[in-house]
Amino acid sequence: MTGDARIRRGRTRVESPSLARTGRLLVACPDKPGIVAAVTGFLYHRGANVTTLQEYSTDPEGGRFFMRVEFTVSTPTELDAGFEAAFEATVAGRYEMAWRLSRAAHRKRTVVLVSKHDHALLELLWRHARGELHADITAVISNHEDAAAHAAEFGVPFHHVPVDKGDKGPAEARILELLGDDTELVVLARYMQILSADFVRHFPSRIINIHHSFLPAFVGANPYHQAHVRGVKLIGATAHYVTADLDQGPIIEQDVTRVSHRHSPEELVRLGRSIEREVLARAVQWHLEDRVLVHDGKTVAFT
Amino acid sequence: MTGDARIRRGRTRVESPSLARTGRLLVACPDKPGIVAAVTGFLYHRGANVTTLQEYSTDPEGGRFFMRVEFTVSTPTELDAGFEAAFEATVAGRYEMAWRLSRAAHRKRTVVLVSKHDHALLELLWRHARGELHADITAVISNHEDAAAHAAEFGVPFHHVPVDKGDKGPAEARILELLGDDTELVVLARYMQILSADFVRHFPSRIINIHHSFLPAFVGANPYHQAHVRGVKLIGATAHYVTADLDQGPIIEQDVTRVSHRHSPEELVRLGRSIEREVLARAVQWHLEDRVLVHDGKTVAFT
Amino acid sequence: MTGDARIRRGRTRVESPSLARTGRLLVACPDKPGIVAAVTGFLYHRGANVTTLQEYSTDPEGGRFFMRVEFTVSTPTELDAGFEAAFEATVAGRYEMAWRLSRAAHRKRTVVLVSKHDHALLELLWRHARGELHADITAVISNHEDAAAHAAEFGVPFHHVPVDKGDKGPAEARILELLGDDTELVVLARYMQILSADFVRHFPSRIINIHHSFLPAFVGANPYHQAHVRGVKLIGATAHYVTADLDQGPIIEQDVTRVSHRHSPEELVRLGRSIEREVLARAVQWHLEDRVLVHDGKTVAFT
Amino acid sequence: MTGDARIRRGRTRVESPSLARTGRLLVACPDKPGIVAAVTGFLYHRGANVTTLQEYSTDPEGGRFFMRVEFTVSTPTELDAGFEAAFEATVAGRYEMAWRLSRAAHRKRTVVLVSKHDHALLELLWRHARGELHADITAVISNHEDAAAHAAEFGVPFHHVPVDKGDKGPAEARILELLGDDTELVVLARYMQILSADFVRHFPSRIINIHHSFLPAFVGANPYHQAHVRGVKLIGATAHYVTADLDQGPIIEQDVTRVSHRHSPEELVRLGRSIEREVLARAVQWHLEDRVLVHDGKTVAFT
Repeated sequence: MTGDARIRRGRTRVESPSLARTGRLLVACPDKPGIVAAVTGFLYHRGANVTTLQEYSTDPEGGRFFMRVEFTVSTPTELDAGFEAAFEATVAGRYEMAWRLSRAAHRKRTVVLVSKHDHALLELLWRHARGELHADITAVISNHEDAAAHAAEFGVPFHHVPVDKGDKGPAEARILELLGDDTELVVLARYMQILSADFVRHFPSRIINIHHSFLPAFVGANPYHQAHVRGVKLIGATAHYVTADLDQGPIIEQDVTRVSHRHSPEELVRLGRSIEREVLARAVQWHLEDRVLVHDGKTVAFT
Repeated sequence: MTGDARIRRGRTRVESPSLARTGRLLVACPDKPGIVAAVTGFLYHRGANVTTLQEYSTDPEGGRFFMRVEFTVSTPTELDAGFEAAFEATVAGRYEMAWRLSRAAHRKRTVVLVSKHDHALLELLWRHARGELHADITAVISNHEDAAAHAAEFGVPFHHVPVDKGDKGPAEARILELLGDDTELVVLARYMQILSADFVRHFPSRIINIHHSFLPAFVGANPYHQAHVRGVKLIGATAHYVTADLDQGPIIEQDVTRVSHRHSPEELVRLGRSIEREVLARAVQWHLEDRVLVHDGKTVAFT
Repeated sequence: MTGDARIRRGRTRVESPSLARTGRLLVACPDKPGIVAAVTGFLYHRGANVTTLQEYSTDPEGGRFFMRVEFTVSTPTELDAGFEAAFEATVAGRYEMAWRLSRAAHRKRTVVLVSKHDHALLELLWRHARGELHADITAVISNHEDAAAHAAEFGVPFHHVPVDKGDKGPAEARILELLGDDTELVVLARYMQILSADFVRHFPSRIINIHHSFLPAFVGANPYHQAHVRGVKLIGATAHYVTADLDQGPIIEQDVTRVSHRHSPEELVRLGRSIEREVLARAVQWHLEDRVLVHDGKTVAFT
Repeated sequence: MTGDARIRRGRTRVESPSLARTGRLLVACPDKPGIVAAVTGFLYHRGANVTTLQEYSTDPEGGRFFMRVEFTVSTPTELDAGFEAAFEATVAGRYEMAWRLSRAAHRKRTVVLVSKHDHALLELLWRHARGELHADITAVISNHEDAAAHAAEFGVPFHHVPVDKGDKGPAEARILELLGDDTELVVLARYMQILSADFVRHFPSRIINIHHSFLPAFVGANPYHQAHVRGVKLIGATAHYVTADLDQGPIIEQDVTRVSHRHSPEELVRLGRSIEREVLARAVQWHLEDRVLVHDGKTVAFT
């Protein structure tokens, strides 16, 4: 692929002029009366216009309340740090909120980890090139060299970090170094190495994995083979946040496809690839759009 | 079926004690900043607690804004007429709102019209008996006598209103008389008579029809036969509000199922029945829960 | 419901005149060349016309071969016992076939067991009344009395067989007595008692259970509650043959529906009911049409 | 992308050694008794082993019969021209069969036509590179230059054939020249030029189009915009063979995805892309595997 073609692709990502004036407030707090009024009142008095508001309460009486508000302001500068200071002082403190402001124009710095199976990686690179994923994919990291050519096609730096089975420490250390301080999302696009609890701790609810199975049906290795042995009539895939507890992290999205006794394990793998690509891409997109909150081992997904 | 059994069924509808304290505000108005803050501020100052809020704007700049807010108050009396007067005076007038308050405890008076195919009727009667549909089914009306026994099983009055092909006026007049002034929802559960524009005008966005096709694919008669001739690989059903323009009313819900060349028109009909039942039941439930607003020939469905 | 209505329903089951001339051969044998030719050659020489042929081999070289052939003969008498004797002598012996002839006109004698949840039972009774299930439902048996009225509505004998938790033997013995020698299919339509291995042994691949979960995801009790705790995005149901190994029997059919964090365990139960009804009804229909063979803990479902 | 990477990809297409010994018989003829026996008897006597047999009859009495038989022989030479001569002489003539033998090892020479939207093209190139599509993609042809880089990445020759709106003749003539005598499949992967009846006549049931709509719901241009105006709750895509009658050709595959009032026409387009990719890829794969027969404006798809 020529450099020209790559640039042309980049140019197709025409950004909405209003993106720079769009903010998103993500809020979690104990539920009690008045939260929505307080937040939307605050926005109104700053001249902001609510464009989408989604909320959820685990229990209106004594439960936990979650909210995602997307809004526009009249000029980008109104989303400066002053906004956050005012919100903390006026609203957040009063309601004991865990909260953050996300600026829609910001592209989250994202790194994709992959092993040999490249379909999930390619789906992400493609959607990104097409302007569907509002992220900055800063690197592809792999314990194999196979993905190098794909990364190059899409103009993304590639890093080969081999893993020593006997001592995974150095590889994780090297990956952490590559991720640096400013990586905001790590996507495991069929990365087949288990990450240590210590590694995971650096990125709470910021590592998305695609599990090639409909969790919790076939936890662990070779799920398509397990599915074939059991003779199931549907196979699926699950995108989830990674926690120290393997395959148990909060589920972001799942989907399935119909199969029959006619499908060999190899064909299940092929059919599974389509679902894995779709499910991972949806989960990553929702994360990039600040649609997914985590609570009590589950996600609240404002999709 | 014995009377005892019928009563036992009735008893299974245990109502949530909080239902009497739950209200729903349905709002449509020109979009401009401050609407959410105004509505939720109003609720907060009356001591109400927002439990669900959903909104949608066709365009944040100059479009039309829609909102559904579900909230609880501390005693049922706070939902009395005073609430409506206060909301009109304080909020609704200022924002040129078309709005209404719905009390969750109220069961909408519902009449089901049916012809010979009874599957959609029975689905509704069953779900109702099981407590899934929060309505008062006050009558079943049919141009045939076939459905009488089913209505009797479920303890619902049945009225046979034959239709004279040459002059449908008297039948419609009789049905209007049976519906009276207080029927809030009319469900056409495979009622095969076309209703006049005049009849429809009495119940704007209050007549739900199940069209045995994935509209707008096979408008009109014998859609399964049409689908078979065309060799489609999916068949579906559509629940929509009835307007004077036949089969063109706002779509509430649709679903499909997979078929193949092996299916005869008769088998398509059989498979279609399952979808029709499910799609109609969903649409009726959403209507009963005040989840569906109509705008510009389409629905805004807060599901 | 009046007796007349019941009879009228019965009358709607107009049977195809060709059903009496339709046979189905179900075959399983070691795979080797010539099987299809031998079976279809046999049918041709007896003047039969193959209308549907489905086959499957676990491995063309040394695997096991399965076939379902539906065919018509010119008069019903050609499906007499002579047919079976001739097939055994001419074809089946040579290929070491496990096989049977099923006559399409025959309605399998079917008994439905149910506990308190009646939705799956009612779905079966309805589809049966509507002529969709080609069976003879000879009895409904329950450990509770709740289903008696429903059975009566549909004119099916009802038997109440309470289960003593301390000693389930007498209840199983009573059920076996009611099933007698001629029951061909037992459907567990949400029957919440575990059947003993001894009981199951009487009906190999003849007891169909609906498991209110997408197996093997949530084996055991309260799967909807488990699903809610885990925060899955799809819930499902599984119809399977019952074996001595609880919840591990060969899967006949599965389906799922989409859910979100908004759904309470109670709502998952309600949504699950629709899937359970549909999945069980499909599995029972396929069994009645002799579409399901069992091999190695899995089904070969010629659907 | 480097040449090395391209070669590595090519190498991943490891072909099953048995592919060279696998044949497929595709048959259509008037239905009468004995066809299956005749065909499978013929295969048996030549030492072939049937691995899959699928058949369908529009009507066992006087209808048209279709069959797909996949079988293996002991050496590739047994699939030489002698096979076809023998089948014609022994079986096909007797039953007035329209038939052909397809050798599984043969990769159909395939050309992809595309305009500006590249997602469907890329899906095909990817699946092909991954070994999922058993074809020889000999060229990409476009009326725009945008796809050139993609074609180059995957090592496929690219031809730019601009279309003069006033006179499309020269462009079609040029495309026909490029297709030559040996192109076996033409895929319109969002090629937005209408092909003349004359052009289509050269490739009966050999041009596959992806229509970005659930046909026949939104025939013609801008279907997603039409779907948005109508407020449908599902959008879909349709892969069909191209006939002289625009958008009316036999449907090979369809699928849908759920949408709501929240989706703008642009978002429908984005969601639609995923379905289009998937549906077109399935249709092309089935065609390449000789699974699709055409009859009476419909497909018989042995999937």
